Amino acid sequence: MQLKMTKQDLTEFLADVFDQVADDFTVEDLAPNYARIRLNVGEKHLRPGGTVSGPSMFALADCAVYMAVLAMIGPKALAVTTNASMDFMRKPAANTDLIAETRILKLGKRLAVGDVLIFSEGLDKPVAHSTMTYSIPD
Amino acid sequence: MQLKMTKQDLTEFLADVFDQVADDFTVEDLAPNYARIRLNVGEKHLRPGGTVSGPSMFALADCAVYMAVLAMIGPKALAVTTNASMDFMRKPAANTDLIAETRILKLGKRLAVGDVLIFSEGLDKPVAHSTMTYSIPD
Amino acid sequence: MQLKMTKQDLTEFLADVFDQVADDFTVEDLAPNYARIRLNVGEKHLRPGGTVSGPSMFALADCAVYMAVLAMIGPKALAVTTNASMDFMRKPAANTDLIAETRILKLGKRLAVGDVLIFSEGLDKPVAHSTMTYSIPD
Amino acid sequence: MQLKMTKQDLTEFLADVFDQVADDFTVEDLAPNYARIRLNVGEKHLRPGGTVSGPSMFALADCAVYMAVLAMIGPKALAVTTNASMDFMRKPAANTDLIAETRILKLGKRLAVGDVLIFSEGLDKPVAHSTMTYSIPD
Repeated sequence: MQLKMTKQDLTEFLADVFDQVADDFTVEDLAPNYARIRLNVGEKHLRPGGTVSGPSMFALADCAVYMAVLAMIGPKALAVTTNASMDFMRKPAANTDLIAETRILKLGKRLAVGDVLIFSEGLDKPVAHSTMTYSIPD
Repeated sequence: MQLKMTKQDLTEFLADVFDQVADDFTVEDLAPNYARIRLNVGEKHLRPGGTVSGPSMFALADCAVYMAVLAMIGPKALAVTTNASMDFMRKPAANTDLIAETRILKLGKRLAVGDVLIFSEGLDKPVAHSTMTYSIPD
Repeated sequence: MQLKMTKQDLTEFLADVFDQVADDFTVEDLAPNYARIRLNVGEKHLRPGGTVSGPSMFALADCAVYMAVLAMIGPKALAVTTNASMDFMRKPAANTDLIAETRILKLGKRLAVGDVLIFSEGLDKPVAHSTMTYSIPD
Repeated sequence: MQLKMTKQDLTEFLADVFDQVADDFTVEDLAPNYARIRLNVGEKHLRPGGTVSGPSMFALADCAVYMAVLAMIGPKALAVTTNASMDFMRKPAANTDLIAETRILKLGKRLAVGDVLIFSEGLDKPVAHSTMTYSIPD
């Protein structure tokens, strides 16, 4: 199955539909069933000490799977998250962007499942892992 | 086991330690192994159409279990979330506060597990369910 | 919404469709959006020391939500588990039946979500907690 | 970090400690933070129609992460599963062994997290995905 949207398509779609968070995310790379999404870490994502907050990591994982799914099915679908699981494994590096390596594990008619590893940019070991399920409307 | 913190203790602790989000949450009720926490929904929590965003619900569940655990073990502990699972079941009502009904299922020496049902205020059916695990430092 | 199956209906359905495991489970109580299911613990469910194995607890949670959903939608549906999360919180009592207290949190057209607390019979504190999502065919 | 156990060590350890299920599993490959474990599918793992049951997939994921962790920390540790999440994505092929591709994502002092993709042998697309957390005793 091939991509139905380019990086630019996705970026414009995000700006259009979720303008209040679109600046938080950058689509870095895109391939069939794959996306690499950056969280442009700013003041609002941080906890005292400069570490990225849990909800910000959740938002990144959620957005990353959403982008990867939309790239495959096109911009018209109003997909919604139905299930999320996250493991927080290490403290993110202070004041450092996060990178979400995202794979689509299943792209069915009704459900899509994606898997995300989140890294502090430049570091080897993942800070978090997430699995997200999206329900795809008819 | 009894509470080690009152509603006011918790509120002050949150304001002290997480001042950038403390205004988002209100401790409504507290009992041993139980907390009811309100998300004071504002512009930043909303998606187009007025519905509360997924990351805002995650933040509420995370904070609710954190508060319920701290109330039992006291303010000195630096507990961190290690695992979270969430089911998003219904669309929250537009521009309406969310209420997190929170139970502690386990309070061990190393791990605490809490269970949260999230409701749009005034409605019967939960919009989301979450289970959170916190690691408790030695 | 009312029950479409009785305890006896469910028991007969389970014996009919899953005869190799039907003897493992007993439907103890049934109400709208609620079921209490017993795992009749035998040799095959045990680990050394007499504790019930993780896969046996998974099987109980899976079956309990399945039964609770079928009781609401009737026996014709071929529902399948799409997602499961489990927290194992305490060691089950040795050689003791397990009881699954099961609530349906959502019963949609396409997805049903159930929540299970598992207890060693006669004890107060849950040994495990699970959330299960079932996909309901058209 | 290097392996502390070989394939043969692990196989013998499993036979020793979990003799009632040891024949179900074969350690196919082992490397630092990696294991490939086979479920030798037999009658008891099947549902009507020949498909592998959910609890059998759970047992495989659980055992696979356990093996991968033990290989890194050695046989003396009495690790227990504290959290599991599973996505069931496709129906397994009838009467076919399952292969668990297992990675250790985190190996901390207290918690280990592993990630498993389960395949029907010979097929490209995963039938299930799981994340497991083990608590490691002091």
